[in-house]
Amino acid sequence: MTQSSQAMWMVYLAGEIHTDWRDRIGIGVAQAGLPVELCAPVTEHNDSDDCGAVVLGEPCPEHDANAFWRDRLGASLNAVRTRTLLDRADVVVARFGEQYRQWNAAFDAGRAVAMGAPLITLHDASLDHALKEVDAAASVICRTTEQVVDALRYVTTGVLRRP
Amino acid sequence: MTQSSQAMWMVYLAGEIHTDWRDRIGIGVAQAGLPVELCAPVTEHNDSDDCGAVVLGEPCPEHDANAFWRDRLGASLNAVRTRTLLDRADVVVARFGEQYRQWNAAFDAGRAVAMGAPLITLHDASLDHALKEVDAAASVICRTTEQVVDALRYVTTGVLRRP
Amino acid sequence: MTQSSQAMWMVYLAGEIHTDWRDRIGIGVAQAGLPVELCAPVTEHNDSDDCGAVVLGEPCPEHDANAFWRDRLGASLNAVRTRTLLDRADVVVARFGEQYRQWNAAFDAGRAVAMGAPLITLHDASLDHALKEVDAAASVICRTTEQVVDALRYVTTGVLRRP
Amino acid sequence: MTQSSQAMWMVYLAGEIHTDWRDRIGIGVAQAGLPVELCAPVTEHNDSDDCGAVVLGEPCPEHDANAFWRDRLGASLNAVRTRTLLDRADVVVARFGEQYRQWNAAFDAGRAVAMGAPLITLHDASLDHALKEVDAAASVICRTTEQVVDALRYVTTGVLRRP
Amino acid sequence: MTQSSQAMWMVYLAGEIHTDWRDRIGIGVAQAGLPVELCAPVTEHNDSDDCGAVVLGEPCPEHDANAFWRDRLGASLNAVRTRTLLDRADVVVARFGEQYRQWNAAFDAGRAVAMGAPLITLHDASLDHALKEVDAAASVICRTTEQVVDALRYVTTGVLRRP
Amino acid sequence: MTQSSQAMWMVYLAGEIHTDWRDRIGIGVAQAGLPVELCAPVTEHNDSDDCGAVVLGEPCPEHDANAFWRDRLGASLNAVRTRTLLDRADVVVARFGEQYRQWNAAFDAGRAVAMGAPLITLHDASLDHALKEVDAAASVICRTTEQVVDALRYVTTGVLRRP
Amino acid sequence: MTQSSQAMWMVYLAGEIHTDWRDRIGIGVAQAGLPVELCAPVTEHNDSDDCGAVVLGEPCPEHDANAFWRDRLGASLNAVRTRTLLDRADVVVARFGEQYRQWNAAFDAGRAVAMGAPLITLHDASLDHALKEVDAAASVICRTTEQVVDALRYVTTGVLRRP
Amino acid sequence: MTQSSQAMWMVYLAGEIHTDWRDRIGIGVAQAGLPVELCAPVTEHNDSDDCGAVVLGEPCPEHDANAFWRDRLGASLNAVRTRTLLDRADVVVARFGEQYRQWNAAFDAGRAVAMGAPLITLHDASLDHALKEVDAAASVICRTTEQVVDALRYVTTGVLRRP
Repeated sequence: MTQSSQAMWMVYLAGEIHTDWRDRIGIGVAQAGLPVELCAPVTEHNDSDDCGAVVLGEPCPEHDANAFWRDRLGASLNAVRTRTLLDRADVVVARFGEQYRQWNAAFDAGRAVAMGAPLITLHDASLDHALKEVDAAASVICRTTEQVVDALRYVTTGVLRRP
Repeated sequence: MTQSSQAMWMVYLAGEIHTDWRDRIGIGVAQAGLPVELCAPVTEHNDSDDCGAVVLGEPCPEHDANAFWRDRLGASLNAVRTRTLLDRADVVVARFGEQYRQWNAAFDAGRAVAMGAPLITLHDASLDHALKEVDAAASVICRTTEQVVDALRYVTTGVLRRP
Repeated sequence: MTQSSQAMWMVYLAGEIHTDWRDRIGIGVAQAGLPVELCAPVTEHNDSDDCGAVVLGEPCPEHDANAFWRDRLGASLNAVRTRTLLDRADVVVARFGEQYRQWNAAFDAGRAVAMGAPLITLHDASLDHALKEVDAAASVICRTTEQVVDALRYVTTGVLRRP
Repeated sequence: MTQSSQAMWMVYLAGEIHTDWRDRIGIGVAQAGLPVELCAPVTEHNDSDDCGAVVLGEPCPEHDANAFWRDRLGASLNAVRTRTLLDRADVVVARFGEQYRQWNAAFDAGRAVAMGAPLITLHDASLDHALKEVDAAASVICRTTEQVVDALRYVTTGVLRRP
Repeated sequence: MTQSSQAMWMVYLAGEIHTDWRDRIGIGVAQAGLPVELCAPVTEHNDSDDCGAVVLGEPCPEHDANAFWRDRLGASLNAVRTRTLLDRADVVVARFGEQYRQWNAAFDAGRAVAMGAPLITLHDASLDHALKEVDAAASVICRTTEQVVDALRYVTTGVLRRP
Repeated sequence: MTQSSQAMWMVYLAGEIHTDWRDRIGIGVAQAGLPVELCAPVTEHNDSDDCGAVVLGEPCPEHDANAFWRDRLGASLNAVRTRTLLDRADVVVARFGEQYRQWNAAFDAGRAVAMGAPLITLHDASLDHALKEVDAAASVICRTTEQVVDALRYVTTGVLRRP
Repeated sequence: MTQSSQAMWMVYLAGEIHTDWRDRIGIGVAQAGLPVELCAPVTEHNDSDDCGAVVLGEPCPEHDANAFWRDRLGASLNAVRTRTLLDRADVVVARFGEQYRQWNAAFDAGRAVAMGAPLITLHDASLDHALKEVDAAASVICRTTEQVVDALRYVTTGVLRRP
Repeated sequence: MTQSSQAMWMVYLAGEIHTDWRDRIGIGVAQAGLPVELCAPVTEHNDSDDCGAVVLGEPCPEHDANAFWRDRLGASLNAVRTRTLLDRADVVVARFGEQYRQWNAAFDAGRAVAMGAPLITLHDASLDHALKEVDAAASVICRTTEQVVDALRYVTTGVLRRP
């Protein structure tokens, strides 16, 4: 049966922001012409950190506690974006890397699963044990962005590209 | 009152993949010009079975357990598609045939009912007793694809085609 | 502030099918150019009664029980339409008249309220006491179709037409 | 397998208040020792009508509109009870009789169905056609209170009393 | 940390009714003293089939269609029990055997998953491929009732019994 | 990664109606070309007060209680609009001013939070203590309409405008 | 039919904390022996204000912004209590007085309504117009604590105490 | 107003399992006599890792992939416990430490927030920046187990213990 070409799939890309994995998925999705709309948190690291203070002002300037409340302002503002996009997402891809703790990615993965969105994780085998609970809740565990694109192709168009 | 012509009805076709029932419904819907968009799981049997291993690699090659975990990979990938489409469906049609066990169709029917989507079943009278619990949760029980199309015509356009 | 002109309001018209109240609301809505899309159960009385038997066949022909199971077939088929449209509705209008018992309208009103859709009832004052529980759950109680149109104008466009 | 004896089933009895059907079910449930707790709206007709005015005062005394707003006060107060009990109910039984319009019963049936509670209707065959939409959403349609008790026995204890 | 001993876990046992698997789990749970309350559909096969006709009467006696509508009466009555128990269940165990088609078990599994209850399946390896979609949605796949009891022990008490 | 330009964000503006804060946000959003659609309750104060009586008639004319029931008619009609728009909103902005009690704004804020929509409050520091519970549930607390526009720019486009 | 005496009704008392209205309802409920369990936010004003700083420390001591973030700490801690109790409540009573702005009460009322709990408001007629939107969403509007107790008696026991 | 002493608060303790933080909270809660029932994932690290393989057997013995699928078996079994306990929890406490990545804790925190349970985080200030998104979704951020106990005392009993 011919698949419908109308319905777009909203795919949220959570996690690691210091590598180019989102761009690579974006290119792959575009090249394959998939009915996929990608969305993401703000991935400009400085903007993501500073946004609260820039928009609303420093919370308690020149005080030791400023960093703490500054993070609160920024993270809360980022969450307005994140929550709405997660809510719209048909599929959530969460990327975990060796660097940094990326609790944010695991937090988003937890929210996605609780909200009923299928989860695709993307990480090296070296992180398997540390991520076993997250992976157990995931529908697909990928090692490469190519696998993510292939999975999205199959899921959204029903076409399996065999090697 | 004139019916609205704008709103499309998303109809998910679950179950049997080795006969042409989906195509026949697709043709009937198209010929009748119904405001219906059909969707379905991947119905290419080999692709549906192999997708996980093709996209992600064999899970434990040359090991007895490969078949088991291979099915897991594939079924989990298929479920990303299935869950999202079921979630979008206004109506779910589940087809049961004499061949194979088709637990998948009954599983999808259960999910549809729990998610609040009206269920139409399509099967021969010979399966009535075996399907009595599923049928009791269904809104319509059809014997032929023509009946499915007629039911969809009536439901989506309000037009009853009398013989 | 200028109101948005893009968003349509889906309004479901439940109840009485032997008078022209739906047409009058339809004309009023059209004349006022409201961003309203009306929908309704099948209002062709014979079709609504016969649909199950016509599409699926008589349930137990020439048997006393045929009428009972015939109604079941028809009502279940009608419910596929009704449930989906109620689910899409932003507002539900339920019309009660002197004739017939119209339990169907009250049943739809109960479903609408439980599903969170605002309810507008439309009936004469003579039915006030009999409808007091339904009215207590309604947001608006109208006596005329003109009032329904005026209420929809105000609700959807924010414009109050003063006499 | 022995059935659990601990879990009680909350059964809400909606509808007709001028006959003794609730008492008959209550006696039947008690005699059978079923794990069933019955609940109901206030069935003292005058109290149900007057409660709002008695607790809160007449809404606009000596004015034509008093009856209308008096009903509003009463029905809204009754609804506090009804909504909570319906919300707790595992099963809802709705009784329809020849007398009065009993839109309230149909309204409660609609709410029950939308809230996911199985519905049992209780009415004579003479009302079958008028109630066909409500019955199509019901799990069980009974003609007598004995049938209701038998159904509750089977459902809650798994014991089928054969004649 | 000492586990709480107060909270009971409601476990629903769906599927196959012609073998003693429920009793074996019941004995295992009792011997282990687990905080588990088991529940199930009516497993007396004849009662499960006849319940509707016994409680409500034959639907259209001496007519070809009686068997069909008789099943409807029975399955709908059984569903009142099933839906409420599934709704209460913390965990659902679904048993699939070689005999019969057991669409009912797959249907219940689908409902359980959609309702958010963790699913444990119990079946032989010979059914793995046919059940791959159901298993992919399951949290645990068991081959023996001993494994089910061991899984319930671990899940409900946190105690892992090592060999 | 380039942000999607397709998805609109529905932003509901609740609260204070006697100042021009909505217009200022509207101008700011338009000048910035944000993918934002603003919506609001009816902000014409007299219309908002009179709407019920104008559409439906005075509830109990020339009686002391008329003002009370008149408010009921109007507020219930306004609520049809409010509930639907709140339901559609991705983000809710609630404005509190020194004048009037504005319980309505706090009520809408409570509904928004319970419905899962991120909340932005807009008020002077002088109201901080009185609004502390509402603010604690808010994602962003703004002092100026410029800050609201800047927050919406960042949230919807991912662009942070640094000074 | 005798009402069940087992089921308790959880009633949450929101709003004004500087008068004795909660105690008066508590005494009335106790004297009447109602099956009602009352709960409330922390009503010791200083504790409610200071709790965050006392438990977690001052947020940015000796800085102008301390008051703002101190309120945040306190209100967020209070909200843990409030959200859980509101979630458990069968009925919410919200008290509004002449003093203070009590946005908190309106916020809680909004949350209660959105969460599906029937709302009873308690306030003088002088506040009617300012509270019209909140009242329009309420099931009962009381002027005195005696009326609240009478309403709870009727709702929970079905007994109407006539004067 | 006297607080109710009947209602227990279920508190789930997520995260770090190699320190004694749960025991310290348990002792604090017990000494304070709080109406709190603590629950947790299985905290015996080896059992948590091995449970799947012990109950169900090694997934693909003597194969490179065994570790991966072994983790899957274990994590899925643990999730049956976790999901049910999280679902029951009134409050979730998530502990993050310097050691290990503890993605599991962040994942549980995400699920808790999405499920509507208030979140308390417990971690050193050194982790503030890395946890800013999780903290922004938390109601309370504690540095010590004493603070957690104090917060639970205040929340569950309304008693603020001042120094």
